[in-house]
Amino acid sequence: MARLVVIGGSAAGMAAAAKAKRVNENLEVVVFERSRYVSYAPCGVPYYIEGLVRDLSSLVYYPVEYFRRKRNIDVRVRHEVLDVDPKAKEVVVKNLDRDENFEMEYDYLVLATGGKPSIPETLNHNVKEVFTLRTLEDGEKIKRACEKAEKIGIVGGGYIGLELTEALMKKGKKVLLFQRSYPMRRALDPEVSNDIIKELQRHNVNLHLGESFRDVESKNKALCVITDKNEYLVDILILAMGVKPNVDLAGRMGVKLGVTGAIKVNDRMETSVKDVYAAGDNVETTHLVSGKPVYFPFAPAANKMGRVAGDNIAGGNSRFRGILGTTFTKIFNLHVGRTGLSAWEAEAAGFDAAAVDITHISRSHYFPRKERMHIRLIADRESQRILGGAITGREGVAGRVNTLAAALWGGLTVEDLTQLDLGYAPPFAPVWDGLIIAANVMKRKL
Amino acid sequence: MARLVVIGGSAAGMAAAAKAKRVNENLEVVVFERSRYVSYAPCGVPYYIEGLVRDLSSLVYYPVEYFRRKRNIDVRVRHEVLDVDPKAKEVVVKNLDRDENFEMEYDYLVLATGGKPSIPETLNHNVKEVFTLRTLEDGEKIKRACEKAEKIGIVGGGYIGLELTEALMKKGKKVLLFQRSYPMRRALDPEVSNDIIKELQRHNVNLHLGESFRDVESKNKALCVITDKNEYLVDILILAMGVKPNVDLAGRMGVKLGVTGAIKVNDRMETSVKDVYAAGDNVETTHLVSGKPVYFPFAPAANKMGRVAGDNIAGGNSRFRGILGTTFTKIFNLHVGRTGLSAWEAEAAGFDAAAVDITHISRSHYFPRKERMHIRLIADRESQRILGGAITGREGVAGRVNTLAAALWGGLTVEDLTQLDLGYAPPFAPVWDGLIIAANVMKRKL
Repeated sequence: MARLVVIGGSAAGMAAAAKAKRVNENLEVVVFERSRYVSYAPCGVPYYIEGLVRDLSSLVYYPVEYFRRKRNIDVRVRHEVLDVDPKAKEVVVKNLDRDENFEMEYDYLVLATGGKPSIPETLNHNVKEVFTLRTLEDGEKIKRACEKAEKIGIVGGGYIGLELTEALMKKGKKVLLFQRSYPMRRALDPEVSNDIIKELQRHNVNLHLGESFRDVESKNKALCVITDKNEYLVDILILAMGVKPNVDLAGRMGVKLGVTGAIKVNDRMETSVKDVYAAGDNVETTHLVSGKPVYFPFAPAANKMGRVAGDNIAGGNSRFRGILGTTFTKIFNLHVGRTGLSAWEAEAAGFDAAAVDITHISRSHYFPRKERMHIRLIADRESQRILGGAITGREGVAGRVNTLAAALWGGLTVEDLTQLDLGYAPPFAPVWDGLIIAANVMKRKL
Repeated sequence: MARLVVIGGSAAGMAAAAKAKRVNENLEVVVFERSRYVSYAPCGVPYYIEGLVRDLSSLVYYPVEYFRRKRNIDVRVRHEVLDVDPKAKEVVVKNLDRDENFEMEYDYLVLATGGKPSIPETLNHNVKEVFTLRTLEDGEKIKRACEKAEKIGIVGGGYIGLELTEALMKKGKKVLLFQRSYPMRRALDPEVSNDIIKELQRHNVNLHLGESFRDVESKNKALCVITDKNEYLVDILILAMGVKPNVDLAGRMGVKLGVTGAIKVNDRMETSVKDVYAAGDNVETTHLVSGKPVYFPFAPAANKMGRVAGDNIAGGNSRFRGILGTTFTKIFNLHVGRTGLSAWEAEAAGFDAAAVDITHISRSHYFPRKERMHIRLIADRESQRILGGAITGREGVAGRVNTLAAALWGGLTVEDLTQLDLGYAPPFAPVWDGLIIAANVMKRKL
């Protein structure tokens, strides 16, 4: 009986394990996970901290026991894989609770080691009360620390930084948000980010944009956050400065990395080492609009990659083609979504990109509770193809962003989008949907 | 100076007039409209009857004066075009208020005569208090009549019949809804319609399904509705039995009709008669999934067709490629949307269609106020292409249906949909979106 060993029990790892076992029940499947949880939703942690989600265990999709008993998968939490010998096809594992090491052979290996918080190399690690958020355990620690804190510093205006800002403001905390450029800089053009800034200001967030975090020091019972412009006293500090691939193990075992620093895989999720697959926030994938390698550490892609890896290991022939860069978030009452390339990404990828911004309504003009939305559309002057879009508003944002994502997958042109048969009913959309208006405006510009 | 005459001032007519004038300001543009309103939203009438929309005039996008003064379009309401002489390029028009006829020459003509309510040929026309809903004036009449009525019969379980049922139930009326098969039979498979039936029952609608309307008679101060099964006393009766193309004028002037009975046009919206265009609920178009001619009297298509006709008349070169059949509606708290082909439509169009039904959640499982949705996906066994889908639920329906519509436009396969990079954030979508789950279930079935 062949054995699959999966390193990491988060989204990609458990998707690989479950799919492999489902396709080939004769496969022995072992999952090693360092933390106490597998199959959990780290994206839910800000809502746990806010109190919208009461219990950390509700962020777990399936408990360990479910995988053991119902799926016949040998899940071992609190187990860290210390080393892999790809020649001997063997892993060295530490049982963290018993502090014992052991070896195990594998026929197939999945590296699902995920990502880790990006923190400055020069950070003063001697200061307590500095947190990052990646695992459920991180969430527990932050929630506990915040109970006593009044003033909280957050460095980073990405998804996690913004969602934590909202959560902590709603808990009555004073939040100082530091971001060296503008919110969601990696995902959005400034024209869209500006909507987020307004929403943060509307909710009295103490915003420090264009200010670079330098370091943190203890000062009496408080922390002193040092930026390139000033110093600020806070009770605790959360660093939400992005994610980088956790490739220590991969590097040590000789697995090839890509230009983004994440593990290079083919579309079957195979690494450069035979019988070693990788999936999730530790791999590099392809951006389907630019065709270029990209590091895109988001849960839907991780789940799909894991499923593809598991299917192939079990004898299937699945392909993960890549991502479009679709993401959603909610910042107070502002819904934000984006897909494809922003204007700056499009230019960086070598396109002659055109951008239009329109505002339109979410429902018919005469229907109660309509909301305005801002749609930014990006297109390629040469091919006339849509390259991406971003939308902000108070309703109807997510569905329209997904609609653009499907349009990107199909390679639709601006002309196609002007003609697209989108639905209409007064409670859900005006007769000329905003996406079509944006496409018509773009058509005149191209 | 060339003159464009537009017959009909609803969606298609005004879109054609406005676009033509915008592209070529030297064009003289005259619009004749029989009613008192142009550029209005008949789809909003049920909400006016319900009271959600207070004033009928808010259903008008732009008032007549706007077109006259700001757009320099000669809009004449209460004018009926009695005849067209395509050889002399002349229309005979009746000023309904003055009861005077006059002729006018045209260089280009747009037939935007719309649709008209479908009613049985054998209907007893001597009975008062029998209504149909098409124009704003119809809405006024129904609203006035309903004020005194307690018990209202509605024949037809399509969009208008269902939306009126909800509106009148909310006004405290007793509604008897008659439908010879099942609700939204033309748009949905029974598996989806069943969700509507449950919602109607939940709201205590007096449902008479599988019952055919035969005729109506006066009985004392009431009306007697006669079906193939029984007789029912009501105060007023509304016939919402569908729409048919208003092609009387077109027929008389020798414009060719298509197999659906609506006006045949090419993708420039040109009819068989030189310089005569047609757009809106009086024309036949192409279903982009089946490739077959279809009659699809919905406002977004009418608007787009009008715009294309206007652009071409003004010297442009626009094409209307066809429709996907995307529609939304809301029935009490149930959101319903569909696009592409239903299973029965797919089979009628000659596809070897497979259907799957799944239920899934609208938000992450741990996020408050998540709702269940029902997704039905239709695919072609041979090409593996998606052919259509229908979704019901209490949130997140419209956006997902539009996403499927964009997928249909791009010709996406089931495999594509399993891989599609749809957005994820706990307030808006679970990590595996229902569309992807449905595609994965379909993939196993094909």
